[in-house]
Amino acid sequence: MVVRKRATGGYVSTLPPDQALRTFTPSNQFATSAFRFMNFRTEKDTMGPVQVPADAYYGAQTQRSIDNFRIAQDINRMPKEIIRAFAYLKKAAALTNRDAGVLSAEKAELIGRVCDEILEGKLDAEFPLVVWQTGSGTQSNMNVNEVVAYRGHVLQGGQLSDEKKALAPNDDVNKSQSSNDTFPTAMHIAAYKILVEVTMPGIEKLRDTLKRKSEEYMQVVKIGRTHLMDATPLTVGQEFSGYVSQLDHGLRAIKNTLAHLSELALGGTAVGTGINTPPNYSENVARHIADLTGLPFITAENKFEALAAHDAIVEAHGALKTVAASLMKIANDIRLLASGPRAGIGELYIPDNEPGSSIMPGKVNPTQSEAMTMVAAQVMGNDVAINIGGMSGHFELNVFKPLMIYNFLHSARLIGDVCVSFNDKCAEGIKPIEENIKKHVNSSLMLVTALNPHIGYYKAAEIAQTAHREGSTLKETALKLGYLTEEQFNEWLKPEDMVGEIKK
Amino acid sequence: MVVRKRATGGYVSTLPPDQALRTFTPSNQFATSAFRFMNFRTEKDTMGPVQVPADAYYGAQTQRSIDNFRIAQDINRMPKEIIRAFAYLKKAAALTNRDAGVLSAEKAELIGRVCDEILEGKLDAEFPLVVWQTGSGTQSNMNVNEVVAYRGHVLQGGQLSDEKKALAPNDDVNKSQSSNDTFPTAMHIAAYKILVEVTMPGIEKLRDTLKRKSEEYMQVVKIGRTHLMDATPLTVGQEFSGYVSQLDHGLRAIKNTLAHLSELALGGTAVGTGINTPPNYSENVARHIADLTGLPFITAENKFEALAAHDAIVEAHGALKTVAASLMKIANDIRLLASGPRAGIGELYIPDNEPGSSIMPGKVNPTQSEAMTMVAAQVMGNDVAINIGGMSGHFELNVFKPLMIYNFLHSARLIGDVCVSFNDKCAEGIKPIEENIKKHVNSSLMLVTALNPHIGYYKAAEIAQTAHREGSTLKETALKLGYLTEEQFNEWLKPEDMVGEIKK
Amino acid sequence: MVVRKRATGGYVSTLPPDQALRTFTPSNQFATSAFRFMNFRTEKDTMGPVQVPADAYYGAQTQRSIDNFRIAQDINRMPKEIIRAFAYLKKAAALTNRDAGVLSAEKAELIGRVCDEILEGKLDAEFPLVVWQTGSGTQSNMNVNEVVAYRGHVLQGGQLSDEKKALAPNDDVNKSQSSNDTFPTAMHIAAYKILVEVTMPGIEKLRDTLKRKSEEYMQVVKIGRTHLMDATPLTVGQEFSGYVSQLDHGLRAIKNTLAHLSELALGGTAVGTGINTPPNYSENVARHIADLTGLPFITAENKFEALAAHDAIVEAHGALKTVAASLMKIANDIRLLASGPRAGIGELYIPDNEPGSSIMPGKVNPTQSEAMTMVAAQVMGNDVAINIGGMSGHFELNVFKPLMIYNFLHSARLIGDVCVSFNDKCAEGIKPIEENIKKHVNSSLMLVTALNPHIGYYKAAEIAQTAHREGSTLKETALKLGYLTEEQFNEWLKPEDMVGEIKK
Amino acid sequence: MVVRKRATGGYVSTLPPDQALRTFTPSNQFATSAFRFMNFRTEKDTMGPVQVPADAYYGAQTQRSIDNFRIAQDINRMPKEIIRAFAYLKKAAALTNRDAGVLSAEKAELIGRVCDEILEGKLDAEFPLVVWQTGSGTQSNMNVNEVVAYRGHVLQGGQLSDEKKALAPNDDVNKSQSSNDTFPTAMHIAAYKILVEVTMPGIEKLRDTLKRKSEEYMQVVKIGRTHLMDATPLTVGQEFSGYVSQLDHGLRAIKNTLAHLSELALGGTAVGTGINTPPNYSENVARHIADLTGLPFITAENKFEALAAHDAIVEAHGALKTVAASLMKIANDIRLLASGPRAGIGELYIPDNEPGSSIMPGKVNPTQSEAMTMVAAQVMGNDVAINIGGMSGHFELNVFKPLMIYNFLHSARLIGDVCVSFNDKCAEGIKPIEENIKKHVNSSLMLVTALNPHIGYYKAAEIAQTAHREGSTLKETALKLGYLTEEQFNEWLKPEDMVGEIKK
Repeated sequence: MVVRKRATGGYVSTLPPDQALRTFTPSNQFATSAFRFMNFRTEKDTMGPVQVPADAYYGAQTQRSIDNFRIAQDINRMPKEIIRAFAYLKKAAALTNRDAGVLSAEKAELIGRVCDEILEGKLDAEFPLVVWQTGSGTQSNMNVNEVVAYRGHVLQGGQLSDEKKALAPNDDVNKSQSSNDTFPTAMHIAAYKILVEVTMPGIEKLRDTLKRKSEEYMQVVKIGRTHLMDATPLTVGQEFSGYVSQLDHGLRAIKNTLAHLSELALGGTAVGTGINTPPNYSENVARHIADLTGLPFITAENKFEALAAHDAIVEAHGALKTVAASLMKIANDIRLLASGPRAGIGELYIPDNEPGSSIMPGKVNPTQSEAMTMVAAQVMGNDVAINIGGMSGHFELNVFKPLMIYNFLHSARLIGDVCVSFNDKCAEGIKPIEENIKKHVNSSLMLVTALNPHIGYYKAAEIAQTAHREGSTLKETALKLGYLTEEQFNEWLKPEDMVGEIKK
Repeated sequence: MVVRKRATGGYVSTLPPDQALRTFTPSNQFATSAFRFMNFRTEKDTMGPVQVPADAYYGAQTQRSIDNFRIAQDINRMPKEIIRAFAYLKKAAALTNRDAGVLSAEKAELIGRVCDEILEGKLDAEFPLVVWQTGSGTQSNMNVNEVVAYRGHVLQGGQLSDEKKALAPNDDVNKSQSSNDTFPTAMHIAAYKILVEVTMPGIEKLRDTLKRKSEEYMQVVKIGRTHLMDATPLTVGQEFSGYVSQLDHGLRAIKNTLAHLSELALGGTAVGTGINTPPNYSENVARHIADLTGLPFITAENKFEALAAHDAIVEAHGALKTVAASLMKIANDIRLLASGPRAGIGELYIPDNEPGSSIMPGKVNPTQSEAMTMVAAQVMGNDVAINIGGMSGHFELNVFKPLMIYNFLHSARLIGDVCVSFNDKCAEGIKPIEENIKKHVNSSLMLVTALNPHIGYYKAAEIAQTAHREGSTLKETALKLGYLTEEQFNEWLKPEDMVGEIKK
Repeated sequence: MVVRKRATGGYVSTLPPDQALRTFTPSNQFATSAFRFMNFRTEKDTMGPVQVPADAYYGAQTQRSIDNFRIAQDINRMPKEIIRAFAYLKKAAALTNRDAGVLSAEKAELIGRVCDEILEGKLDAEFPLVVWQTGSGTQSNMNVNEVVAYRGHVLQGGQLSDEKKALAPNDDVNKSQSSNDTFPTAMHIAAYKILVEVTMPGIEKLRDTLKRKSEEYMQVVKIGRTHLMDATPLTVGQEFSGYVSQLDHGLRAIKNTLAHLSELALGGTAVGTGINTPPNYSENVARHIADLTGLPFITAENKFEALAAHDAIVEAHGALKTVAASLMKIANDIRLLASGPRAGIGELYIPDNEPGSSIMPGKVNPTQSEAMTMVAAQVMGNDVAINIGGMSGHFELNVFKPLMIYNFLHSARLIGDVCVSFNDKCAEGIKPIEENIKKHVNSSLMLVTALNPHIGYYKAAEIAQTAHREGSTLKETALKLGYLTEEQFNEWLKPEDMVGEIKK
Repeated sequence: MVVRKRATGGYVSTLPPDQALRTFTPSNQFATSAFRFMNFRTEKDTMGPVQVPADAYYGAQTQRSIDNFRIAQDINRMPKEIIRAFAYLKKAAALTNRDAGVLSAEKAELIGRVCDEILEGKLDAEFPLVVWQTGSGTQSNMNVNEVVAYRGHVLQGGQLSDEKKALAPNDDVNKSQSSNDTFPTAMHIAAYKILVEVTMPGIEKLRDTLKRKSEEYMQVVKIGRTHLMDATPLTVGQEFSGYVSQLDHGLRAIKNTLAHLSELALGGTAVGTGINTPPNYSENVARHIADLTGLPFITAENKFEALAAHDAIVEAHGALKTVAASLMKIANDIRLLASGPRAGIGELYIPDNEPGSSIMPGKVNPTQSEAMTMVAAQVMGNDVAINIGGMSGHFELNVFKPLMIYNFLHSARLIGDVCVSFNDKCAEGIKPIEENIKKHVNSSLMLVTALNPHIGYYKAAEIAQTAHREGSTLKETALKLGYLTEEQFNEWLKPEDMVGEIKK
């Protein structure tokens, strides 16, 4: 039998024509690229033989999952970060098994070599499975086991068509492991790594730019706005310092959750008891993972929790949603302050990156704010998906694992990326539009607040209300009402004295 | 034994002092009112005797629930709408049982009399149970059964202390019923009623005012804003017509869900099979409920669904959250348009209802918008609680019933109330501030869009960009660039011609 | 300058090396496939010249968006359903413009030809933009405009490198349109199509199978369970009829939302006023879209709403989340009923599709239920993202459009796909395990409920409680307590008489 | 004019009859209790005179809010915890103002005395405002200012009807304050206090009981369940240790958020600049609050963040939702393990607290689990409301404050209360049902896992599959297939050896 293979992931299997059709309609995003003719070979698992593409490194169980879970196969593949995390842990397990004397040094070395290839991205096309599979991620664990075993076999000179391979997926690559402890271990590795490599650096980059802007414009006095209404003044730098403080606290919130994420389930095996592991396996394998990743992973203090619940993911995503709330506020403020150019607030200039309209010539829009606020909304949605997954475990296993890590990685990636994009394409170019800023602050009736200590809240209110009603200035009104002299007014009511102590 | 009774619901029971303390600290909102001395009497259920307040109409099972569920007892009592709905259904069940010959006419009449008292609000203090009880609402069903039985006994001359009462809670008041079909029936009655009596009238009231405003200001040309940036013009009336359309569609969305809500579970009894009901009971009791409420209730086409799932509540709240999204948009727009008065957009006047600030004299804020947007956020949260409850039934019963209806009634009430409040205190007083509106529309660079059909998008863009860069007007720039004559400019670029056909 | 091009979407642009690096690390999922050498050509928009890949059909604005929005570019491309929907509407607009005499027949025909190619999937690689762009989707609209214009130019014999092309992206392809009305139109087309082509057929397929199962097992009496505890009996068929009823109501709920989705924004152009459109354009273009898609689209009754709010999406996804709640319940029930095989409930057999464990040999798991429940959780999360997007529009435009439709299409696709998967791989193979079913129903103490009408609730309770305490059968206990004779017991307490009237 | 006053909060004002009606229909939960006749007096604010109940301690602005926000007035009063928190801060502000020489010692002392009365609960009825008011909480701040001023006037001998009072609400009680910094300060005080006084002690109580249960049943070997299917064994104590670990991590997660909550906004006044405060006011007032509450409050490092964003609330509620996820898992497990008694899993006995059914005699249900899972769902909903509120601030102020703290306090209270309830009425009475536990573990086919290291995964799988298919035992099948001897089987396959190292 002869079938075509897609260039990027996903293979045609021995399906009835109508089912195969579904996968390969032109509407399938992956199906549009180069095809080539392909043969099949037979692989076996405990349920019997399966036809797999002749040159695929994966085997029977991966193929079964492709056939059994035709759910959004073109858009929801298991995140690559999880596949990479598996490579770390499979290598660490092999080393630990070797040290414990339950796996030969040759096999351990071979497993490690394939894991390195996975980490280099050389085998990405061999991991075609989707998020919507078994909730334990067993099939992705087996996908990795199969690829490591069969690619290892080839690396040491064998043929994929050999019935007997140098490594066995279950008995060698998965030795001293279960999907139930490997998948949550991969979840923590992937989550921790993306936070420290993508999310936090992204936030920090934006935070640093906003901090610079805050310092640069610390003396620019502007009107404050509460309830969207004119209020007492502050400086542009002070306003931006609030954004900086939000991101600083957000970074701390994320850091607070890393300790729980650093706990690894590996060594719990099937139900948390560690059945079929050699002595001290848990501690040793965690140490190997810490060495390989350079991150402070430790073995979980309680393996039963580590398999049956993923509160660390729920908790850490709670920090991400907090950052999302901050980003929504910041991006909203900036686009409102930049609104106009002539019929809006117009106090901030933001870079013009692209034509803003297909119909309105010359229009420029706050598009980076829009991407950021959309990301914030997405993270809030992802949070709910994670919460529902996290609360729905039963007995010894939570079976919403792929859902949870898919949403977590999505959020972590989006936040990291959007912070960099917003920073590079918007924040760095922000400048105050001093003309408008001055006009606004000088016209504000709320400067009257400075008079409270001198003439009391009630008289001050009368001045403001009268000025508003009559369209006059505060000074005119104050003098007309006779509540103070011009000298007093000039001394007491200076916007630049109303912004408190300014950090320089 | 002598204990004090609270004036509004909740009774002290024979608890150890430390537990009783918790309920009656001064921090208990309900505990601050008048107390009086009270004796106890003994009531029994199938688990044995229980001390209940001597003058309470409820009995043993209600008291057990008070003692067993000391969870937010001061703030989360079972909504009164559910108690009222139970009164309808208990009366309807009694009538149906009487017609079927399984309940005497005297008992049916007595049950009906107490139900009428409940509907008049006379017995509110007799329903002290909280939302956080058994998930089937069994205890509130029994609370109603007990109150109807014991109040009925008193109504026909008995004493609460009589061991034998004229009506038995289970065998008479609950005859042909189970909590499993009565509580979901009460949910649908309460939900349907509040939608048609509170929610929809509230939305309609606001919709009608916005419609009037739309018509009144249909000729007032103003600048449009997209991405918060200046865009081509429209009229104030057109802008408001969008709000009206949102609410019209929202009302339709709610109406679309009423059919599912009109299906009643009653007659399914314990698991949906209708065990222990007389022939044709389901249809007859639904007809009685329809008669008593004046609403088009029918018996559910499938009783197994009606007990085990509450998709009708999930679905109908999906419409409420849609309306909440509309209200958030409308309230946000109005407060942004009213922002200022001097450093904001300032195109709408909204009523000054109260001093806006405790420190800034004379400040006025868009407080009705704030209440409305907070309500919208609450409804969005309630939606998630309802979704989780709705998805979490098992086998023949969903046991998140009180949670679901509590959140549903909360949303329905909030939307109805806030629409009336916003209408009365804000929408009715809205007026355009024509001076600012004119200034904004005339300065807009996006009027250039009208030139597209004459000189093309690219040249039009050049005019707008140049005018923006140089701070000049469109006309000056257009003429300077030589793309058209002054006559052409004056003819082609009129804001009032750019707003399309206006419905009057 | 020479750079490599990726086989599936995404192009390398003239970026500084450090930025380019980010996109092309091996971790980029799309970057692993075949590359080829590539030259650039220069395209222009109103902001100036941009280098684009020499053989790309898109132009300057698409390239700007690639460069400006480096956010999850490997995983979140604008859904293909939106691109297809744009093809329908661009063709429809061209035909309408031709009929109105504002576009030549040649140009209209050329536009139509490219649109047909897009619909055939031939140009998928030309749409590399991501969801996280401007919130109006302007850049994807321009991506389509550019591809249609430049591919059209090539189709009629031109070269991509020609400075002057046969079609202009803005003035021809986008004629009588704005992003602000095209993108929401594409949203409704895509949403409506996926609901009727993927989501509803998927639900219907599963519904039909469950209906068949319900009929097939309508006579198999089993124990009911409420609160997870033993209750009165029902039949397997009755239990499944509840699932069918849920899906039937869910389908109705979806259908109820189609009317709002059928309203198209096209014709509103920039802010809803329809500036720069010929007479009767809205109605005519909607009719053309209806013709091309075969779906009953009409022009929106209010264009201001149609641009500024997407309540139709919020509302329709409210129906999808209702279905998700149903699916969660159904999938949960089925896996609980299939639990065991020896230490669980074990009343249902479900197909063994794959080895269930990498460590526990011979284990089989309810994996289709797991995929379905994960999908349900995802839909619930997507709902919140959509709600936040839907409530966050400002003035004349909602700028969360790509977020909203991305989540909507995700949910619609996931529900459709998972229903088919669950149907094919699980539901069709479900069989009752009659041995366990019989054992459970016969041992149930809740059969005692049938005695209520004969001996009253209290005595019945005493029988059940005593039997439970003593571990005896109901009959033994009933006779021992002397509440009825053996004949009475045998006559009154038959499980098969306790399941009500059975529809056959 | 003479009107009736309600016993608990809420007063009748000079409303047109139709509006007054709405508040006092019998359906108003609060309106059913004792009324008394009441006169009015006139109070003034900067907008003019207002009629308030003659004996109410509050004044004009409170009355305006009652009249302007008729939204769920019977069910959503501002939480008492916020009123108490205000009492702490008003007293602290008075002391700080006194120390700074801007308030007389007499006035400071008088303010302090009223605050003490508020803390004792003596003035609860004077705070009738609802959550759905202005989003800054200004009206509740003014409610407190008025009550402190007027009650203080009475305390020192004055009459409520005196036009001039001993204390002025704005100039004395609110001195050096704004609603914009007091309300968020009250939010943090209330949130911190409820976490350490209600939420965490509740969780700890349940945690301690589960820990005791875990230790007590650490040797009871039972079957594990993954994917709801039979798996390898563990002990009851191990299973419970997972719950303990979840709660331990949850407590840590809450503690991690306390630092952000300990930062107080007070001193920022109107927009964060601290206008109208004496020197060092922020630090001093925070120290006074710390003294008065005994909690480690400090002044916020950035006041602009502290007014404009409430990320601390979003973050801390992220920890609460994590605990809610844990509680959902624990409560679900326990009710599933207790399911039956005869047709379920039946491995745990839980206390019978009340009759479970109004129709099924003798039924007992896991009602505490039901209350707990409903609470978990509510917390998840509250989280979304808080997220939306938290992300929606503008410029110098977030105006979703009442919404946010209302939901926060609701969750914190529910979790604390439900943990105590579940602990007292369920967890403490849990006992394993050893007979069923033994039966289940001994019949499990997954004990075969212990054979992997001896005969390999494939042969082990064959044994399990054959035994399952033939309904035979593992031993029979293993011997029949000839893969090991009876001695080997007996030595290798012992459930008690499969549970790993047990912590005693």
